[in-house]
Amino acid sequence: MRFTKLFTRTTKENPADEVSINAQLLERGGFVYKNSAGIYTYMPLGFRVLEKIRGIIREEMNSVGGQEMSMPALIDKKYYEAAGRADIKVGFKTGDDNFILGWSHEEIITAMAGRYVSSYQDLPFSVYQFQTKFRNEARAKSGLLRGREFLMKDMYSFHTNESDMLDYYEKVRHAYQRIFERCGLKAYYTLAAGGDFTASNTHEFQVLTPVGEDTIFLCPKCSYAVNKEIADVKMGDPCPKCGDEIVEEKSIEVGNIFPLGTKYSEALNLHFTDENGEKKFIIMGCYGIGLGRVMGTIVEIFHDASGITWPESVAPFKAHLIALPGGEAEAEKLYETLHGTRFALHDVLYDDRKDKSAGEKFADADLIGISLRLVVSKKTLEKGSVEVKKRGEKEAQLVDLTSISDMI
Amino acid sequence: MRFTKLFTRTTKENPADEVSINAQLLERGGFVYKNSAGIYTYMPLGFRVLEKIRGIIREEMNSVGGQEMSMPALIDKKYYEAAGRADIKVGFKTGDDNFILGWSHEEIITAMAGRYVSSYQDLPFSVYQFQTKFRNEARAKSGLLRGREFLMKDMYSFHTNESDMLDYYEKVRHAYQRIFERCGLKAYYTLAAGGDFTASNTHEFQVLTPVGEDTIFLCPKCSYAVNKEIADVKMGDPCPKCGDEIVEEKSIEVGNIFPLGTKYSEALNLHFTDENGEKKFIIMGCYGIGLGRVMGTIVEIFHDASGITWPESVAPFKAHLIALPGGEAEAEKLYETLHGTRFALHDVLYDDRKDKSAGEKFADADLIGISLRLVVSKKTLEKGSVEVKKRGEKEAQLVDLTSISDMI
Repeated sequence: MRFTKLFTRTTKENPADEVSINAQLLERGGFVYKNSAGIYTYMPLGFRVLEKIRGIIREEMNSVGGQEMSMPALIDKKYYEAAGRADIKVGFKTGDDNFILGWSHEEIITAMAGRYVSSYQDLPFSVYQFQTKFRNEARAKSGLLRGREFLMKDMYSFHTNESDMLDYYEKVRHAYQRIFERCGLKAYYTLAAGGDFTASNTHEFQVLTPVGEDTIFLCPKCSYAVNKEIADVKMGDPCPKCGDEIVEEKSIEVGNIFPLGTKYSEALNLHFTDENGEKKFIIMGCYGIGLGRVMGTIVEIFHDASGITWPESVAPFKAHLIALPGGEAEAEKLYETLHGTRFALHDVLYDDRKDKSAGEKFADADLIGISLRLVVSKKTLEKGSVEVKKRGEKEAQLVDLTSISDMI
Repeated sequence: MRFTKLFTRTTKENPADEVSINAQLLERGGFVYKNSAGIYTYMPLGFRVLEKIRGIIREEMNSVGGQEMSMPALIDKKYYEAAGRADIKVGFKTGDDNFILGWSHEEIITAMAGRYVSSYQDLPFSVYQFQTKFRNEARAKSGLLRGREFLMKDMYSFHTNESDMLDYYEKVRHAYQRIFERCGLKAYYTLAAGGDFTASNTHEFQVLTPVGEDTIFLCPKCSYAVNKEIADVKMGDPCPKCGDEIVEEKSIEVGNIFPLGTKYSEALNLHFTDENGEKKFIIMGCYGIGLGRVMGTIVEIFHDASGITWPESVAPFKAHLIALPGGEAEAEKLYETLHGTRFALHDVLYDDRKDKSAGEKFADADLIGISLRLVVSKKTLEKGSVEVKKRGEKEAQLVDLTSISDMI
């Protein structure tokens, strides 16, 4: 995409009303636009990052047999009433008091499952969606980390018995680990409380950072981790798993998984008939990831004084091509060549601006944070080359013009 | 995908509370699930159709330079107040009266554009999103044709002058024609009123069907069409374009485009500075397509007594493979072979059920309506073949087992 066609502009100044690093850098780079507290628009650059994260999550959810679908946001109050969650504070109600804006979809998916499931032969299965959630959070001031409206991947699984559910739970755990790894994040699998979702313990995926709102106790040696809210160890204690010393860390919860048991199947009357003709409640699990929060966390972890340093897997483009004086014609040609290869069609950002200095273009490239920077100038062309530099690295190298498109 | 893994089930009976053909067939086939009047879940099969429609629209919007982004649903009332649309009936308000659930996004995109646009050099551009819209419709009884919550593609374009906007408007018109053609629909470009959007005339894309809620006057010879609401011709009149006879038809509006002029740029103070340093209001256009309505319309047009007859481009899968007695092992092999080719991985529905008769499997295939049906049975294998039948055609043909994957 040509920079001159890009709708957004970068800014040098931090927005006055943002205190978090992720919101500051994402707004300055033109990735997001804050419409209200905790409510953001994903501008074209930010939308591309969101789509890359969505693609990674989708692949991994499909790999554990998840079936993608899409549930509504306007949820009749009766659904939430059935499980006693109609008056939970985070739920926005419509003015006519008929609907609650979906803040989680356990009730409605459980009710729908009743139409299709009757026998043990119909089980197990799991379904998921990417869908906008609404939560009226009081503390919506951490940029993308805590939104009042945000895109979430929520998956729900249905099983005949606890052990089958726990087997699947482990599979999803590993799929989640793969998702966070592919997004460049080291996430600790952390024991946690059930909150508004279930009475049993659950698991969170926590990424360490001083700006996190959560506190966990962690064993750096064996990765044992427990949320402070339910911990029976403290700083300096021996790790209950390996005996090494427990440390206390601030962290961001980027995902969570819940063994729901029969809480929702009992509330909404979801049965199956087993091999012996006996009627039983279905055992459920649920599994969430907030995509905006993942994006915000990546920025909190991957940035330096000049801007964002996206991991390649989620960067808005694969390469950032810059034309400098004397290099315009060749840059133009190179951009068109890269267009020719199918992947590159959508994956090169081309700074074709004529009214900006080299310094301004470099600053924007650093702020936007695409992993690979290509510069074409009179100087590089004298050597028949393009200057290639990785974001975050000091050293640049010259690569022959003719081999650059193979290299990418 | 294996039928035995599919979460949903088909039903023979029409749902008691659905009067429209599209809702009846889509619910019976397991494509959608009605949660409340005008509010549907897209189950895995329906979600696949929606995604195919989204893919077609996305390609065409990108082809006219649209930049994809994503705006929120919770819209501060002040935005709608600025253009005098805060009290329009279809707008759902939140219980705290702070937000209106987005039913159209002219105001908020106009407000955002103000951050990035200042000069004529920043224009023109266009942005679009696929986003859930909320409209509190009184008449939500036509299945997917009139929803209270529905996925919409809305695009907004920004220009320095009327003629540039109208040039772009024509480009989008042709992109829309391509979208509907690719979805199998013949849509008439119809002059219409501006409704709640603009004072000027606008254009609708109308598909003829007796179940349509709209009435248009149409010249079958030259395709001149005008919505009855603003028509100054009537049935039997000579066509103002070619003189042929005007007829009256019922139709469904599947898309609309609006020359907005300066209505929103004036309301929200969106200026640019022209070549002479003069400050002027930006000229805008907007362009909408409801994806669910397109899907519902396709079903209204493409069905027979046995079920849906999807156009290939939007069918949930490319092929529907059925294993019959004696053909199970070969069907299994064929399914795995098709898996091997990348496109087929997600694009074959495989009826591997052991407890269903041939008749039941054929009935489900007809109801679900995938364009290509493949049957493997003892009889077809005796000829080393697979029976291939197109949905909607009577004749089947035998295709050699070894060449079937090339054929698809």
